[in-house]
Formats: sequence, structure tokens, C-alpha cells
Amino acid sequence: MISVVGHTAIDNISKVPHLPAKNCSTHISDRQIYFGGGAANIAAGIATLGEQVTLISCIGSDFAGSEYEFWMKKIGIQRQFFVVPDANTPTAFMFTDDNGDQMTFFEWGASKAFTHAEAPHLPFVHMATADPEFNCRVAERSEFTSFDPGQDVFWYTKEQLETILVNTDILFANQHEVHQMCATLGVTKETIISQVGTAIFTMSGDGSTLYSEGSAYFIPVVPVTLADPTGAGDSYRAGFLSAYMRGYTPLTCCRIGTVTASFVVEHVGCQTHLPDWTAMRQRYQKHFGTLDLPVSRKG
Amino acid sequence: MISVVGHTAIDNISKVPHLPAKNCSTHISDRQIYFGGGAANIAAGIATLGEQVTLISCIGSDFAGSEYEFWMKKIGIQRQFFVVPDANTPTAFMFTDDNGDQMTFFEWGASKAFTHAEAPHLPFVHMATADPEFNCRVAERSEFTSFDPGQDVFWYTKEQLETILVNTDILFANQHEVHQMCATLGVTKETIISQVGTAIFTMSGDGSTLYSEGSAYFIPVVPVTLADPTGAGDSYRAGFLSAYMRGYTPLTCCRIGTVTASFVVEHVGCQTHLPDWTAMRQRYQKHFGTLDLPVSRKG
Repeated sequence: MISVVGHTAIDNISKVPHLPAKNCSTHISDRQIYFGGGAANIAAGIATLGEQVTLISCIGSDFAGSEYEFWMKKIGIQRQFFVVPDANTPTAFMFTDDNGDQMTFFEWGASKAFTHAEAPHLPFVHMATADPEFNCRVAERSEFTSFDPGQDVFWYTKEQLETILVNTDILFANQHEVHQMCATLGVTKETIISQVGTAIFTMSGDGSTLYSEGSAYFIPVVPVTLADPTGAGDSYRAGFLSAYMRGYTPLTCCRIGTVTASFVVEHVGCQTHLPDWTAMRQRYQKHFGTLDLPVSRKG
Repeated sequence: MISVVGHTAIDNISKVPHLPAKNCSTHISDRQIYFGGGAANIAAGIATLGEQVTLISCIGSDFAGSEYEFWMKKIGIQRQFFVVPDANTPTAFMFTDDNGDQMTFFEWGASKAFTHAEAPHLPFVHMATADPEFNCRVAERSEFTSFDPGQDVFWYTKEQLETILVNTDILFANQHEVHQMCATLGVTKETIISQVGTAIFTMSGDGSTLYSEGSAYFIPVVPVTLADPTGAGDSYRAGFLSAYMRGYTPLTCCRIGTVTASFVVEHVGCQTHLPDWTAMRQRYQKHFGTLDLPVSRKG
């Protein structure tokens, strides 16, 4: 069982002819609602790949009976939610105009409850972007910890990052997040890598690098027709963690993560085009060769 | 039975510390969802006052099973909806910062279906802000017509306004809307008044004026503690039309509209504090004297 801690969120993606000036209005020509939130995206990816997963999120009173709840049940995500009756489930409103310029309004909503929530004791947890204090407590109480700071990296203090990294077994970050962690901690990238043991740094469309046991491995992306890069990182982590649980080596896990992400970016939305294990394996073998059963560790 | 034609909409009212610049984001500190849309507000006011009302709106596939549908059923609004499966129910997103500056994003959504919808034949209809072409067809086919152009007054052509006004028995407008109608039509306010027979021009917190049978009557507002002026106009119309249906004189109808509106502005939201007939009558008698039963016309 993989536990994933962090946001469940609802993404409202709207197109507008122009972004409004102050005290002005604009009309929305198209609005789509997508299921999102980093932790929920990862949990959905893991569940679709066939692994057991529990999602630990804060939700509002608007969640029960919603289409999102229906979807989570359908794909088999086990849910361990902090329900905040007077709040909304975290919701993002993104408006993009005809020039590609954007404005984003993010409602933290129910996720405020993380601050005072009791951290569970977990055998295998991935901590996606969420409340730094809660993640510190989870890291200290869990046995095996995977971590990605995500866009909330700016909210972490030096002490919080130190507490988490000393308890982290696998670290995921993109280049901006690595840079920010180094700045906050006052250390080099190499120091961070040596501390966590296994680090995966992603470089958007330029692939990813695995640092493990003193070596570095580059994993190229799987070329696909890109529709929307949103959710690529989350699905990469879902693929990696599912494969890791099945006992694959970190390098194979990275390749499986890369293949999983290649499906997601072909469609708009973070959870609209997740592969099952069979679809993932077929594409894996086309690009990386035979995917044998793992011979060693089984989670 | 009063029919009301126009928008059913969902209002998302959010507070933000600051409005975002282009390609930036902000966080929402509070977001409340209110039931809105001019026609729906009026229908809710009429239903709560105890009159029979049918709401004619365009809605999306998100409406069935929603809390808004539940609310309409609860207060007894009869619904005659054009359901547009691939669209959202009209939705407004309003963001207000700590300085009181705002940005509004309005999604027309399902209301696009008005353009080609078949206009019903109605014995007594109020046309709230909606598609000008549809309103023209409704005005031509209906027996007794009440009209408010609302914020969509700018969308009406000279020909459309002429078609509607020649078929209008009661006209509601605020000062901005009167001004715009005069500009579009190239006529004076007096010409419009003489054409429709009964006109009610509202002046926000400064009361309203009734023009009827060659005379003008000023109706002062009922002084209350103002929480939110939104919905005042819609509830005024609900009070007026309910009273008119019961056979009261236009002047008494205006006073009942004024009293109805005084409840709505005491709370945030257009449908959160609608009075029933008893509550309305109590406040009426406190400010305007005895409200006898009408002696003449009964709708």
C-alpha cells in the first residue's frame, strides 16, 4: 500500500478573449473542470496502474456526492480525508486569453486543516506539495518516505526542509525546485543528493536524471504529440512509485515514470489519460526494450 | 401564473488579498457560492412571496442534481428549462481585493441556446436580461409583457428595443439603462414612458419613480442596514409583479417592491433573504401604512 499525502483540488480552466483590467469584466468562452491536486493526481496514477493506494487529503463539504468522489471510487483510490465542513475543497481558477497570457486564483480552502491535523504513521508514503508543517510530522513518523516539494517549495523554511530531507528516501524535484531548495538550505545540489540517497530531477521536455548510489543516469522523454504538459510530473511520480513498489530498480522506475507521463501529456487534464499497467508496458517496450518482472525487492 | 424569462446563474464571490497581474497568481481567502441570474432571482422572489411562477432559463448539464435545483424545488419555482448538455449553467466569477477593486469573469454558457430557442406563448411574462432576439420573439408572442433590459441593455439594437417596447406593458430600468435606451433609440425618456404606459425607473439607494397614466410618483426606499445592494432591482421587480398579480395599484406595487428589496439588501446574495408575504406586509405597514386587500383587478 502506497499512501499519498497532499492536495485534492478542482481545476477550472477557462478561455477568455482578453484578461480583465482592474474593475472590468470579461466573458468566458469555454470553461472545463478537471480533477487535480498533486497528491490526488499521483494517487489516481498509481490506482490506474493497478497498485493499492490511499490518498490523505483535506476536503470541504462540497466533495461528498461530487463527480470527483465518484471518479476516485471508480478507479479504486482509498480515501482518508480530513473533512472541513465550512470550507471548499481546494479549487483553482485559471484564465487564459487568446495571447496565451494567464491569471490564476487558487483557493487553499479545506487544506488549511493540514496545519493542525494529526500525522499518521505510514509504512510507505509519498508527500506531495501540501502544508510544510504537516509534511514534517509525516516524514518524522513514517518508515519509507518519498517527497516532492512542488510549487510550495517557497513556503518551506530551512528547518522544515532539513527535517524532511533527513527523513526522505526518494526526492523528486524539477530544476526550479532544486534551485530553491539549495538557496533555502544554503547547500549545493550534490549535498542534497548525497543526503537523500535517491534523487530524481526532472527537466520538463528535456528528460530527467536519476542520482542513485553515487551514479547519475539520464532518462530521455518518450516523444509524443503534446497537448498539455500539466500533470507530467505527478504521473511520472505515480509511475515511479508503482514500479518501485513492484520491486523494479530505480532506473527502470524512472523509465516507467517517463512512459506514464507520456500518456498524460497527450491530453488536457492531469487525470484524463492515465494508462493502466498493460498500456504502460506496451509503450515502455517500444521505447526502452523488454520490461521483465523484477527479480529482487517486492514492496 | 407569472412567467419569468432570462438567466439562471451561479455566482462565485471571492476575496483575494490582491488582484493578479498578467501571468501571475493570487490566493483566494474566502469564496462563497450564491444562487443568481436575474430571472432566477425574480422568480425566487415571486415564489417566496407566495405567487405561482414559472422560470424559463437555459441551463447546462451541471444543473440537474445541484443544490440550486434543490433550492428551486424547495421554494416552489416551476421550471421550464432549455437544457444544453455540453455547456455549463451560466456562471460568474467575481474577485474583490482588500482595496475593493474587482475583476469579473462571466460565462454565458448554456444561455447561448436562447438565440435559437422557440419562444413560448405566455399570458403574463417578465423578461429579465437575456438574449435580445429571444426577448423580441417572446414580446411579440405574449399577451402581457413586463421588461427590464438590465446590464445587457448595450447588446440591444434600435430595432430590437423598438420591437420589445411596442409590446411592453410595464418597463423597469435604472438610470443608466434609461440613458442607454434613449441613446440607442434616439428618443427622450418621456417618449419611452408614453409608449409603454407604465414605467418604473429606479435610482439605487435614492428610491424609485413610477410613471403611470400621465403622472409621476416618487417612492422612497425603506431605510435598512445595507449589507449588499446586489439583487435589489430583481427583488423590487418580484415584489411589484407579485402585487400586480394580486390586483394592487401600480403605486402600491412599487411600494411592495421597495419593501421586498429592503429585505434582500440586508444580506449578501440575491436569494438569501427573501421575505414571504407576511414579513413583507409587516414591514410595509410600518413604513407605508395599512396594506388593504386590493379591490379591483385580480390576476
